[in-house]
Amino acid sequence: MSDILEKSQARQRLRTLGEALDSGALQQVARILNGGLSPSDIAHLLESSPPRQRAVLWNLVDKDLEGDVLQYLNDDIRSYFLSKLNAQELAAVIEDFESDDLADLLQQLPDAVIQEVLDTMDAQDRERVEEVLSYPEDTAGGLMNTDTVTVRPDISIDVVQRYLRRHRSLPPMTDSLIVVNRKDEYVGVMSLTRMLVSSPSATVREIMDTDVEPIPVTMPDNRVATLFERYDLISAPVVGDNGKLLGRITIDDVVDVIREDADHSLMSLAGLDEDEDTFAPIFRTSRRRAVWLGVNVVTAFTSATVIGLFEGTIQKVVALAVLMPIVASMGGIAGSQTLTLVIRGMALGQISRDNLRWLLNREFLSTILNSLLFSVIVAGVAVAWFGQPTIGLVIGLALIINLSIASVVGTLLPLFLKKRNIDPALAGGVVLLTVTDVMGFLSFLGLATIFYG
Amino acid sequence: MSDILEKSQARQRLRTLGEALDSGALQQVARILNGGLSPSDIAHLLESSPPRQRAVLWNLVDKDLEGDVLQYLNDDIRSYFLSKLNAQELAAVIEDFESDDLADLLQQLPDAVIQEVLDTMDAQDRERVEEVLSYPEDTAGGLMNTDTVTVRPDISIDVVQRYLRRHRSLPPMTDSLIVVNRKDEYVGVMSLTRMLVSSPSATVREIMDTDVEPIPVTMPDNRVATLFERYDLISAPVVGDNGKLLGRITIDDVVDVIREDADHSLMSLAGLDEDEDTFAPIFRTSRRRAVWLGVNVVTAFTSATVIGLFEGTIQKVVALAVLMPIVASMGGIAGSQTLTLVIRGMALGQISRDNLRWLLNREFLSTILNSLLFSVIVAGVAVAWFGQPTIGLVIGLALIINLSIASVVGTLLPLFLKKRNIDPALAGGVVLLTVTDVMGFLSFLGLATIFYG
Repeated sequence: MSDILEKSQARQRLRTLGEALDSGALQQVARILNGGLSPSDIAHLLESSPPRQRAVLWNLVDKDLEGDVLQYLNDDIRSYFLSKLNAQELAAVIEDFESDDLADLLQQLPDAVIQEVLDTMDAQDRERVEEVLSYPEDTAGGLMNTDTVTVRPDISIDVVQRYLRRHRSLPPMTDSLIVVNRKDEYVGVMSLTRMLVSSPSATVREIMDTDVEPIPVTMPDNRVATLFERYDLISAPVVGDNGKLLGRITIDDVVDVIREDADHSLMSLAGLDEDEDTFAPIFRTSRRRAVWLGVNVVTAFTSATVIGLFEGTIQKVVALAVLMPIVASMGGIAGSQTLTLVIRGMALGQISRDNLRWLLNREFLSTILNSLLFSVIVAGVAVAWFGQPTIGLVIGLALIINLSIASVVGTLLPLFLKKRNIDPALAGGVVLLTVTDVMGFLSFLGLATIFYG
Repeated sequence: MSDILEKSQARQRLRTLGEALDSGALQQVARILNGGLSPSDIAHLLESSPPRQRAVLWNLVDKDLEGDVLQYLNDDIRSYFLSKLNAQELAAVIEDFESDDLADLLQQLPDAVIQEVLDTMDAQDRERVEEVLSYPEDTAGGLMNTDTVTVRPDISIDVVQRYLRRHRSLPPMTDSLIVVNRKDEYVGVMSLTRMLVSSPSATVREIMDTDVEPIPVTMPDNRVATLFERYDLISAPVVGDNGKLLGRITIDDVVDVIREDADHSLMSLAGLDEDEDTFAPIFRTSRRRAVWLGVNVVTAFTSATVIGLFEGTIQKVVALAVLMPIVASMGGIAGSQTLTLVIRGMALGQISRDNLRWLLNREFLSTILNSLLFSVIVAGVAVAWFGQPTIGLVIGLALIINLSIASVVGTLLPLFLKKRNIDPALAGGVVLLTVTDVMGFLSFLGLATIFYG
């Protein structure tokens, strides 16, 4: 099939491109870049390239493609390329941007540059962008486009169709027209598919859907995403406090929110940012990681301090040093499972005051069950290994204590952090592992001191 | 605004529902459930409820809503409810399902039940479902719907519009009509918005888009998701090897794939399944977690065995027992950052043979830089604490060794696992932490044995 051929040709082009880059055949690279690849393909290629190759590629991209490519790049890389442009170049690049994308991009620039760029725009465009810029990036207002196609309820489908034909094109992702009254207040939506199966003489009022709730402009973006997922929306109208239509949100921007939210938990648990550039240069990578290692070296010394309290006991029974990491690490594993489940549940909006008590009970009881099981196994191995019944008793009890604490902390910590506006995914893992390490060593070595004392 | 009021009324209903359930006012609960909430709201409510409450709620859901609600439930909970239905009830529930959702659902049932259900369907529906069932769930074929609206290239827009008006409705998420030739082979797509701004006398051929590549039915679902994200698609045609149109994939199903893929990495790193029911009962939770704890108890004993090799050295210098967890845990932290970055990069399709060497170099060099920094800090603290220069030298060198190994293993391990068809997110974390623990204790205690020997 020609289209499948087309597809493998695209891959072939990518491979040829890599080879051409390696051999320095830059003219050939430029031809492939600007001839055959879509802006999103070029953006993906840039994101997948180490810094030097990336800079070469970027210089070869046609000036009039730059804007499109920038829209698809991740924040980290985009703000780097933007910082290399002056206000005039910027103005040229952003000419065809939609208002929400433009606002996103401007938010990454210094205030002085934003003003310069706004000055180059005509009054209407500037007003639109300033409207979107006035809302935080992570709200419905920051996500919305202002390019809506609206109709009045009392006209006929026939008139609507003639009105539409006067357009050269409709905004991307237009699956419905928004119905507003004379005061520009939201009334309902009329889907294009509904319109297409209706009689031309029907009025908008007869076929519009007034059950669709418009999105308040201040709604957080993750709640917007939940609504889109839950009701399978393609686009949704956005209204201000006064009920006036301000714009619409489209699924492509919502998919980005979903992807970033989901990536956020994964990356944050490892102390990384979801916008992290996979191919960031050495020094930038080192600097960012150093912060995380710094936090963790403090927690590691905290555990060491706890162990230090029991030097005397370890001196007497060296077997304790051999076994003590087991209690700490099992606590960390059990606690991480609970923590991850709760963080995911919070992200999905499943956890509330009503079901928290049940969840805490379930986590505690199922951890107790498992800690009983594993304390028997671990104690058995320990006794067989060192031939001392006491060490089995100590490690078994310590496991039960540490796993129980891990389950409670794993459940309550993310909720506590969120209440204090601390990101549970970023701080949760570090705090949890500090607790399970400290409590693991404390319970094991503490019990040992009592029993061997 | 009435619609915003509407929204807070929905929340109010949910709260009232909770109170009614607590007080046992089941009639009131049923009225709220079936009167005011959408199927996706009911599904969310079920997912957010502990088992007993969930069973009560499910029994109160109207029979003719059950099918819709099931479609929105996560796999874990859905298969539980399905297992409670007999073939007749099943057949009633699935009446209005789209072919892809039906196939998804059937795949969770025993073969005998699938056959029984298929027998209750009429010939055309059965054929459609069997078609979708014949492809693996995680491919384009498993995602697709067979309810396409197709047109021929040589007819006029006017004729198309009259043809559409003969329909009572168009399939959900129809943003374009698929153009096929007489042999039902894919030719192109015509977007509804393009059609609506075109002259009624234009032909489909004049305004259709033939650049859109159809999706091969065997394409893995995560590559389908990448295409949708990269090209901002709402729907896309699916073709067989012979170029014949088989169906179409819509963004709502792709959003589920994106959400599940992103959740998969997060949940798997903690040994959980992305379909995990947040409110699973105690015994099911305990059984699943026990497997993961079992794997980790083996790795913990592996580390203990390594420490056991150096009992003599620890006996001589107890300070070693105090400091040894620091080397292991810093290696684990550094390695997890690399591992997470690589797993995310693989999920985004950024990592290939061409850039792997660069990535490995970057990870190694930036880790070396940080390990030099932190070995000085940690060694300084250790010397100040225990007053022995030797212990500073030992812990500094051990840190450099363990962090270097962590960076190489963190980069290569996920790629190696993937090549062997082992899930990097599930196995990667455990293997990595085993390596960093073992190498941490081995390098630290090994060097100590040499220097203090």
